[in-house]
Amino acid sequence: MCEANVYLLDEKGEEKLFLESVDKIIPVGKELCLEDIFNQRKYIKARIKEMALVDHRIVLERSID
Amino acid sequence: MCEANVYLLDEKGEEKLFLESVDKIIPVGKELCLEDIFNQRKYIKARIKEMALVDHRIVLERSID
Repeated sequence: MCEANVYLLDEKGEEKLFLESVDKIIPVGKELCLEDIFNQRKYIKARIKEMALVDHRIVLERSID
Repeated sequence: MCEANVYLLDEKGEEKLFLESVDKIIPVGKELCLEDIFNQRKYIKARIKEMALVDHRIVLERSID
């Protein structure tokens, strides 16, 4: 399976696991809708900072505007 | 391998293959830098419309601003 783990940069610039096994990411307005392989959804006001699919790794950072 | 194929929506709203076997996507200013598993890079002024990793599918749309 080719899902990815999504990490969120905290205020110290450290990556914290936000959601595992993410299949879908869809921007909805100013938020991102993340959906994992179990169809669990999480919304977050953030933007993608970096994706490395072969490493199963996506890094988000909170957006301010 | 968990790379994805990246499609770009054309002016008719149809998906055209833009780059195959993409590993990394990194926003750089107003552009996206796409890097495939052979380290070939392509830049495009676009934003992510939809990602479906299990289907190995990422859809971009050109950004205007």
